[in-house]
Formats: sequence, structure tokens, C-alpha cells
Amino acid sequence: MFEIEVAVAKVAHHGSGESGDTLEMIERPGGGFSFVLVDGQGTGRGAKTLSNLLATRAISLLKDGARDGAAARAVHDYLYTYRMGQVAATLNILSVDFQSGKILMSRNNPAPFFVIDRRGLHSYSEPSTPIGLQPMTKPIISELPVAAYTYVVVFTDGLLRAGERTGEDVEIGNFLSGWPAELGRSAQELTDTLLRRALELDVGEPSDDMSIVTLAVLPAATTHSVRRLRTVVPFEAPTWPTPDPRGLDSDEL
Amino acid sequence: MFEIEVAVAKVAHHGSGESGDTLEMIERPGGGFSFVLVDGQGTGRGAKTLSNLLATRAISLLKDGARDGAAARAVHDYLYTYRMGQVAATLNILSVDFQSGKILMSRNNPAPFFVIDRRGLHSYSEPSTPIGLQPMTKPIISELPVAAYTYVVVFTDGLLRAGERTGEDVEIGNFLSGWPAELGRSAQELTDTLLRRALELDVGEPSDDMSIVTLAVLPAATTHSVRRLRTVVPFEAPTWPTPDPRGLDSDEL
Repeated sequence: MFEIEVAVAKVAHHGSGESGDTLEMIERPGGGFSFVLVDGQGTGRGAKTLSNLLATRAISLLKDGARDGAAARAVHDYLYTYRMGQVAATLNILSVDFQSGKILMSRNNPAPFFVIDRRGLHSYSEPSTPIGLQPMTKPIISELPVAAYTYVVVFTDGLLRAGERTGEDVEIGNFLSGWPAELGRSAQELTDTLLRRALELDVGEPSDDMSIVTLAVLPAATTHSVRRLRTVVPFEAPTWPTPDPRGLDSDEL
Repeated sequence: MFEIEVAVAKVAHHGSGESGDTLEMIERPGGGFSFVLVDGQGTGRGAKTLSNLLATRAISLLKDGARDGAAARAVHDYLYTYRMGQVAATLNILSVDFQSGKILMSRNNPAPFFVIDRRGLHSYSEPSTPIGLQPMTKPIISELPVAAYTYVVVFTDGLLRAGERTGEDVEIGNFLSGWPAELGRSAQELTDTLLRRALELDVGEPSDDMSIVTLAVLPAATTHSVRRLRTVVPFEAPTWPTPDPRGLDSDEL
């Protein structure tokens, strides 16, 4: 019995309330789950709309049972067709497929992803292109066994740019190669440590949207087979006037 | 500034590895997020396939910007049309809509949901029918302001049935009316306490699938505007032989 933990953190670049990255999670219809992470070209509302559209497409396909590689190809074709090769986005799909008992990473992203296990750190950096620009783009797909004390770390390129302004480097490889896999620390702890490091380098003002997704496979700690999900989202009450839906009956909502 | 926390726990009924309930979360395209909780008629694989199909439909609509009530109606119509009024499911959609600054609950479920705030406990139990059985079924929609020290608790009926076998009652109203909203405890703590209570009454062997979703609005605790998501899923490595995808190149994955 294993416990699979995934911990995500997302911050918007300084001065923008909203991150242009979109992260969605779905349960796979054949068992397991998938995380879709999209970083759309540009910043602000436009980038957010784009990444939202693409993530929506990806999760709809995955929920219908499409294999990850087919979903990534179809999302590329959609973007390439409707934006005529003019707009790029990065797309990562991280899945745990309970049917095959494998972890799958489908990557359309020049940025690498990392795997840490008891043998050390492995960087998956085979050249990979974003979706949207060239016809017939396909993802690089990596397959990993579900084995205890394995960590998979994936992020959008904002993380790599942390510290740029101050001439520093987040040195993510260095940081991750020091992560003690055999201690079985939580994915949450890894994500938080990495985020804290990046925010420090950016002096608390991120120069780009950053999203970090960490998956950890650990020996099961619990006896009951409980699935858990938790999310925490900051929310500032809108200060602009909004149409007041009171007075509408529930037929109109 | 508020912090909105949602904590979910799901257990399968004893003897079944898989819960028939499906819970999906999406980010709303206009800002905010929605949780879709479906309990399909029956148990096992059939119930799971059904709840998965219906949840997929709901999140696809919500991701395309459909209002919650329209999504609930369309999911009902889909089930009613294709299963010809023979199959029922309960459907709850819990949303935080950042555009209007409201919490919305769309309920097609005879089971009530509860709200706790500093004034006490409120049970939302206006009669509501499951989807799938009668033409033109519509949801009961409740709207709440986003206000600090508010908790919203929703669950599938397995929770209400906890203790049935031993002649006990989970007395959820009693339990929740004792929850000290003004202390600002986490949604996670509320969910865990409720689940522990139900599992105790069922002597560790749940007689039905149970899912609990708790939303808490609390004053913001952090300075950085970080969104977080964390999931923990138990996984037993498959013991049946599976086709070995090694040897396939990545074109086939």
C-alpha cells in the first residue's frame, strides 16, 4: 500500500492579482488522477483566458478516457488551428494511472521536470517544444513506476526566473539534489520549501507567475483508505459594484 | 482579505475498494472555483461510471462558463434522456464565485447541507429531488455572502447512514451546532472530526460510500497571495497482470 500525495502552490507575478497559469486536477475514469498545468503566452487576463481554455480542453478529453498523449496532441491541434500558429503555451500533464500502476508525465515545455528517489536526482530535459507554434507538435512522454520514496517535481518557467532581477539563480537542480528522499517528507514540504526559496530570491515580489506541482509516493501511513483533497485560496472581496442577484428567483441563477 | 479553504474526505463502503461517489473541482473561468459532488444510484463500478459521467458533464459546462443552475439542469436532462428516467443520482455544486463575491450551493439532493457561522447552525433542507427521474427537475439554489467565520458542510447520504447497523445515529445537526465558528478552526479539522465520528459509529467498516466537503471562510493568515492544493490518495499496486507498455514508443502512449 502506498500513499500518493500531490501538493501544488501557485503565485501570480507581482502587481497582478491573477496568475496566468492554470492548474486543473481530475480523477481519471479508469482510476487514478491527472494534473494539467498550462502556462499561456503573455501575462494578465489574456494569458489566463488562454490557459483556461487549453486546460479545459485537456481535462475534458482526459475525463472522456483519452490517453494523455492523445489529449496533449489534440490540445496542441486546437491551439494551432484556432490561433493559426501565432500563440504558444506550455502544457504538462502529470498522471497517476491506477490501471497500469504507472506515473506518466506528458511534457510540451522547454523547462525540464525532476524526479528524486533514493538513488538521487534525475532531470528529464529531453528537448520539448511548447504547443501552438508548429504543426504536428507532440509531447515528450516519460513513464515511471509507482515506487515508495519517489518525488516528481514540475513547474512553470516563472520558477526558473526567480532571482533574475537581483542577478541570482534559484539553482533548482542543486536544491533538489539535496532533498533527502529516504526521509519520506511530504510533497507539501517540498513545494513550500521551493516556493519560499523562490520568493526570497524575488524579495517577495515574483517577477513572473509561478506554479509548482510536487508528487510524492510514500508508504501508506493510515489504516483507513481515505482520499483527501484540500485547497486554500486567498480572496479579496470585490470593491467594484456588482449586479445584485437578490431579487432574482432561483430560476435565473 | 479572506482565505477560503475547502477540505474533502472520501471513503468507499467496506469491502469495496472504490467509492461510487465522484468529486471534482475546477477553477471557474470568471474567477473562483466549484466543487461538483455526485452520488450515483447503486454501488460499485456501475455507480462509479455513472457518477463519473455526470461529474464530467458538469465540470465541462462550468469550465465553459455556464452558470451553476444551467449546468445542473443540463446534467439532469442528459441523465434523464439517456437513461430514460430509470436512473437517479444526487448532484451538489458548491461554488465560490469571485465575480459576484458569493458562495453558491446548487442542490439536487434530498439530504440537506449545513451552514455554521457566528450566529449558529442553519440547515438548508428545502425539499430537493435527485436528478434523472422526473422531467424538468431543477436544483434548489442557495446563495451566501463570503463572510469570515462561515462554514459550509455538504456530504453524500452515506454519512447520514453511519451507525445504522449498530442502531446509532451520527446526529450531524447536534454535532455541527456544537462547532465553535468563532475559533476559526480549519475546514480540514471539521471534515476530519466528522469523518472520524462516522467511522467510529460504523466500527471502521463504512456501510456506504461517504464523501464530506467542508468550506471555511477565514480571515487571511498569510501575506503572500499563494493558492494551494493538496491531495492524498491511497494506492494499492495492481496484483493482476497488466499489459506492459514498455517497448511501445512514446507515439503510442
